[in-house]
Formats: sequence, C-alpha cells, structure tokens
Amino acid sequence: MRPSREKNEDVCKEKEYIIPVILKLSKTPFLLILTLCTYLLLSRTTGPVKPVPLVQTGLAAYCAGTTPIGSSEFLDRQRRLAETLVKHNASAYIAEPGANGLFFFNVSTSDWFLSERPLLLIITALQSSGITEANVSVLTPKFESSRAKMLPIPANVKFFTWPEHENPYEHAAAALAGMPGVIFVDGSMRKFIADGLQKALPTAQVVTSSPEVNKIRERKSKVELNILKCANEVTLLAIRAVHKKLHIGIRESEARSLMAVALADAGLQQAGCLTLFGENAALPHGSGTDRALSESDFALFDCTGSLHGYFSDVTRTVALPNSKIPEEHQYIWYHVHSAQTAASRAAHAGGLANQVDETARSYLRQVGYDSYFSHRLGHGIGLEVHEEPYLHGGSNRTIEVSHTFSNEPGVYIEGKVGVRLEDCFFINSEGKAVFLTDGVGGQAKSPWSP
Amino acid sequence: MRPSREKNEDVCKEKEYIIPVILKLSKTPFLLILTLCTYLLLSRTTGPVKPVPLVQTGLAAYCAGTTPIGSSEFLDRQRRLAETLVKHNASAYIAEPGANGLFFFNVSTSDWFLSERPLLLIITALQSSGITEANVSVLTPKFESSRAKMLPIPANVKFFTWPEHENPYEHAAAALAGMPGVIFVDGSMRKFIADGLQKALPTAQVVTSSPEVNKIRERKSKVELNILKCANEVTLLAIRAVHKKLHIGIRESEARSLMAVALADAGLQQAGCLTLFGENAALPHGSGTDRALSESDFALFDCTGSLHGYFSDVTRTVALPNSKIPEEHQYIWYHVHSAQTAASRAAHAGGLANQVDETARSYLRQVGYDSYFSHRLGHGIGLEVHEEPYLHGGSNRTIEVSHTFSNEPGVYIEGKVGVRLEDCFFINSEGKAVFLTDGVGGQAKSPWSP
Repeated sequence: MRPSREKNEDVCKEKEYIIPVILKLSKTPFLLILTLCTYLLLSRTTGPVKPVPLVQTGLAAYCAGTTPIGSSEFLDRQRRLAETLVKHNASAYIAEPGANGLFFFNVSTSDWFLSERPLLLIITALQSSGITEANVSVLTPKFESSRAKMLPIPANVKFFTWPEHENPYEHAAAALAGMPGVIFVDGSMRKFIADGLQKALPTAQVVTSSPEVNKIRERKSKVELNILKCANEVTLLAIRAVHKKLHIGIRESEARSLMAVALADAGLQQAGCLTLFGENAALPHGSGTDRALSESDFALFDCTGSLHGYFSDVTRTVALPNSKIPEEHQYIWYHVHSAQTAASRAAHAGGLANQVDETARSYLRQVGYDSYFSHRLGHGIGLEVHEEPYLHGGSNRTIEVSHTFSNEPGVYIEGKVGVRLEDCFFINSEGKAVFLTDGVGGQAKSPWSP
Repeated sequence: MRPSREKNEDVCKEKEYIIPVILKLSKTPFLLILTLCTYLLLSRTTGPVKPVPLVQTGLAAYCAGTTPIGSSEFLDRQRRLAETLVKHNASAYIAEPGANGLFFFNVSTSDWFLSERPLLLIITALQSSGITEANVSVLTPKFESSRAKMLPIPANVKFFTWPEHENPYEHAAAALAGMPGVIFVDGSMRKFIADGLQKALPTAQVVTSSPEVNKIRERKSKVELNILKCANEVTLLAIRAVHKKLHIGIRESEARSLMAVALADAGLQQAGCLTLFGENAALPHGSGTDRALSESDFALFDCTGSLHGYFSDVTRTVALPNSKIPEEHQYIWYHVHSAQTAASRAAHAGGLANQVDETARSYLRQVGYDSYFSHRLGHGIGLEVHEEPYLHGGSNRTIEVSHTFSNEPGVYIEGKVGVRLEDCFFINSEGKAVFLTDGVGGQAKSPWSP
C-alpha cells in the first residue's frame, strides 16, 4: 500500500549549522574543545550561542495575519460554477485533487495524493424557482472513505464509495444518475480517468470543461490578493536577506540551501529557488552544474513558495559589493529592468495580453537584445505558479481588473550571461498595474539593491 | 518563470543531531562546555565524535553495487514499443515525462517538471526489410531546447521546438508529418495535452495506448529485479534499525522523521513512511493526528523509496520489548501474517490475480476478520509504487514469470487497531513466488522481530 506523501519528510542533506561544521573539522576531542572555545569567544562578540540556520530572516510572522479563504468564498465559487454548468447545459463538473480541486473544493494534491485509485470531486447544479445552487459530491475508494470524510470541503458533501474489486467509474455513473448529456471534466484530469468515465457513461459526452470554468479562478478576490501580496513580499524579503549572506566562491547548491532555509523561515510552503550563477543563468530553467560564484558573475534567484495555497514568483539577478561585473552585463541588467518597467506601464484593464508582451520585446529590440529574450513575458499566478491568462505574443486575451500576472523579461546569451527580473502585478480597480511586491519597494533598484 | 523543482530542497525542520540538542539545552558557555565534556566523555566510550543522525543504519553502501538500467536495455524497450505500434497499426506513441517516460526514454518528472508547456516524448516505428526500429523524437519549448538536449535519453533523438507564441500541438503535428491514423498516447497524459494533439491532428485518432504497451513494463528484467531486491531489502533493514530506536511516548512525527533519516541514509530517493500508532493505523492511509506511542499500541510503518527509479514498498507492524499489546491485537497480527503466507504460496505463474487475493481473504474469513480487510491484496511494483497488474477480486489477469507484486493483507478495526504486513515478491523462472526481501530474511517473524 502506498503511503500518502508526507510533507517535509525530505532529509536535511545540507547541514545548515555552524557547530557540526566545526565538529567535522575537528579530528580529536582536544582540538574540538579548542575550536569550540574559539567559536564561543567569537560568537560572544557577535550574538548568542545557539544552533541557528546561517540565514535568519526574522520573517516568520510576516504573513501570520493573512486570512485564508473562508467557507463563504468557497460556497460562492461553487455557486458560480453551478451557474456556468447551467449556462452551458452541462450536467456536472468533475475534477481530481489539484488546482481546480483546491479552488472549488479545498482539496489539493497535498491533501490527497493522486494515485491510480480515483478520488473524484463532483459538482452538479440544482435549480429551484430561478435560483441555482451547487450540489457537491465525492467519489472515494471505499476503504479510504473515513479519510475522505475528513477532507476539509466547505459544503454539505454526499459521499459515494467504490470497493476495490469493482469499476470505480460505474460508481461515478451511479453518483450522476439521471444526469446524462454533457459532463465537464477538468483539463488537468489524467486521460485514463476521463476514458473510464466516458466508458461507464456511454450516453454522456465527457469533455474538457469550457474555458469559462477556469475563468472563475482568473480574477482574484480581495482575500486572494492579500494572500498573493504577502507571499510575494516575503519572498522578495527572503531573497534580500540571502543576498546579504552571499560571498564570492559560494556554490549554487549552498546558495540554494540558504534560500530554502530563508523561504521556510518566512513561512512559505512548497518553496524553492532556481539558483544559477554566471553563464549558467543563460539557460532559463537550469544547467545541472554546481558553479562557484566568481567576481564577474551575476547570481540569479527565481523563487516561489505558497501561502494558504497561493504562490509567489519573484526573480532577482544580483551582484555582491565586491563583484566586478563586466560592463556589458550591467547594461543588460538595466535594459531588462527598463523592459520590465515599460511592460508594467503598458498593462491595463481592457488592453491585450500580447501588447504587454510586445512592449517589453520592442524595448529590447530597440537596444538590440530582443533575440535573447527567448520566452514569453509572463503568466497568470494564483493557486498555480503558472496559470491562465498568459502574456505572450500569441494571446489576444483582454486584461481585466483583478487579473494577476508575472512580469519577467530576460536576456540569455548562452555561454556568457543570463539576466531575468520578475515581479508579479495585479490590475487594480482603476485598471492600472500594481506590483504585488510594492509593499516592500517593488522592482529592484540595481544589481546591488534587489 | 517557474523554477524546475529542485530535489532535496525541503528544509531540515527536525534537527537530527546530538550537538545542537546539547547546545539548545545549554544556556551559558560555561554550562555548554561542561555539557560538551560530559558528552565527549560518554562518546569516547561508544564511538567517534561526529554530528551523527540519531539513527545510523550503516546502510549507505548497501545498494552501491546495484547496476542501473543500461543503454542497450532502453534501446530494446524502444524497439519492442515500435513492434507493438506496428502490430496495432498505430503510427506513433506519445508520452509526457512520467513512469512510461522513464521506462522508454529515461525521462521522469524529476528530470523534467510537468508544467503547462508540453514536452512530448515520441516514438515512431521505422520498418525496412522486415526489421522494425524505433525513431525517437522530442517536442520541446524552444527556449528550453538547450536543457532538453541535456536529457539523458539513450537514443539518437531528433528535436522539434515550439516558440512561446505558437501552438505547440501544431509543431507536434509537424513532427509526425506523414503519419496519420491511430496515435497512441500514454494513459497518464493530462487531458488538455491529448485534446491539443487531437485538435492539431484532425485526421488522426488520438487514443490511449493499447494495454500491450504497458505490458512491456510489467515483466521485469534481471537488472530490474536486482534493483527491486536491493531497494526492498534496504527498506526493511532501515525499518528494523528504527524499530530498535523507538520508545514508549515517541510521537508519530518523531518516528516518521527517524524513518526519513534512515531511508535517506540507506541511499533511497523519494522516500517516506506512513507512520501510524495504535488506533490511527486503522485508517489504512493515515489519520492526520500526531499520536504518542502507548504501551498497548502497535506502530505501523509503511515505507517506500526509490533506487535507480524503482520503488520499494514494505510495511511492518511492530511492538516494543516493553509493549503490552492486548491479546486480541496479537492474534490479529498472527492472522495477518498467516494470510500473507497463504497468499504467497498461492501465487504462481499461470494462476489468476483474483485467486491470490481470494486466498488471503478466505483465510481471514475463516478466522472472522475478512470484513476488516478492506482493500485489495496488492499491486504491481516497479517504476511506480503501484502499477499493473493488481491483485484484487475483480482482476482475472494471469500471473506471469517476472511479474512483481506487493502482498499486503491487513485488518483495520476503526477506533481500535490496524495491522498490515507487506513484502513484495516476484515470480521466478520456475513460476514460484519469491519475496524481494528474502535476502534479509523476508517476512516478519513477530511484532517484536520485524
């Protein structure tokens, strides 16, 4: 039997404590005591003696006051989904745990691991005297029904169970009795699940749900925006804290560990940073080597973490006080910064997604670097790090109030240098773009002041 | 931009080192030195001074000599897949990174994170003078093509790229030019990818691949069996090492951390243990509380970890030397053990999967506990912890030489007790079931001798 994945089980391979390092260096008890006394003496002058992580951000409580999504907001989402079903003449919506599972049912893949045994989250619409209500049901493996009933789904849930030796999809059909026609399934559903549903419901049309279902998620509520702001602010503060602890010669893996400690210390879940030095940063999603930081290298940190399920996404490309960054690389940094600023000014409610992308791209075209800006400008952000709508040249989506996006231009010259700057923004009630990091100063000021 | 998930980034929240604990207890440097000297004195009599995890398994090198899958085995898998395509008159097979991606292309979701940007792994068949060969190609986001080309795919790969502002599936269509007809896609593919392919290839039939494709994976090679044996042996040894370190009063979370350290120490990746005490173990996949172990409690450990991509799965339900386990619970333990033994004797090449399940179930029926055996007997195991074929009452699959299964009967009485015992087995060349844990003694002997 497979254990459900336990959170935070990974073992600490990077030992972030000073004392063990000293102990490793000390081969005899005598030397050990000598070394320890020296350490104590030194540490008396700098602070208290305790096994501290090398980066203390002091950010543990930064987002403690942020309110998670409440029951009434979940019920409202379910009702809007039911209305969308009615509008499209669909009889049901079915999702697995995941981003939409979390949005409509409060069930993510952390709450319920996706195995070969389907656990299906179902909404049908109930109409009476012109009012549409949502009916929520769950299809669960029978032997796990007690655990399924513990799921924190904000609704009056009806449970259907399937025993191990029977076809789960036939039980789903029973749960949808009298509901033929079009059945919407979440686009991220695994194909074998959709196949099983279609086979067990031969008279129904099992189709990927209308884009309108996902659109319910796109425009963020005030509660969602507050969470997103705090997550992005604290991520940037953690990057700044680690920036101060870097030194020439540090390895990517060491800096990555510092960032992991800092983000966890800041209270973020599912946190991690792409950490790339020098030419390694020219591969936007990583190189696989463990380069040491040289005087002429930028260090790129692309960090994410979640707060109440909502993700941050912040990238900084930094230099150290004693770095000697080649002049061209510094020019590139400021050009990327200007492209980010230009895109931010271009984004507004009623504008088109591809125009925002084009603004950053055309700026870089003017200064001759557009061929090195190899990816889209940005993506929506919320319960997924990347979600609709996207900011790329092929998208004619209209930007709306309360949309959230990343704004992350970059220049990547393979074998030489990579620079990316990323802050997420939302569209405020006046239709203007406001960085989610504005509460802590927003955009970087320079490679030395991230 | 989303960082690809970095492995082992989770922060060490459980501090498994003795020295930091001592330091925490020591409020002044003087007391610290005193405490340390005492520790040194003690440690001189028991072993060398170093920052040791609290559980040292001594197993770090246990599987160091195990050979990973070689290039020729990958090429053979690709050729067999191409032959299956020809047999079913299918023009191509397409998968995302995942278990089948790992089996045929050596690309797992650890190598390439599944994002909204499709990276597709494609095999087509090339026939000349009666010989079938496999053509391997990869469709990659253009801006990530340098990283895609670093993927360790054992084949002469042709790369196709799609730029950010274009439809990736139309580029997939180009990669499959002149290949209409049936296109097999992996069953674990996300539905929106299959939808995109079908839309871009309107004259093709994009269908979930024939079960015969998955069957290529089911019967394990000698190299695979050696890996699976070592992974399962070392998992059992780690459980035994932790068993010796348990004490009455320890919390589930503490024991889970000890297991995580032990499994990582033993060289396993993606490792974790479902860790449940007393009545919590009556919920086969977890309770969510953090119970302290009492004298009358069994402790259940259901552990998994991967070696060269192949998973172990071992469950032990244990008692401590000073435990006072109620008599009925001890009876249950031995009945579960007998059910496991009976199922092992019943499994043989040519037999049916449901008969093996029924053997364990009918044993428990005779002793009155069958209604508490709420799940199937077992599952196939390999690159996934759970994979085809399954051992349950609804399966009339025939068992074959080199199949691998878990054998994990259990009895769960909610509010009282849960017992599960699990060892995986393979079918040897004589058609008999042999436990993958036999190299270290196989099945548990008693709750006190796991």
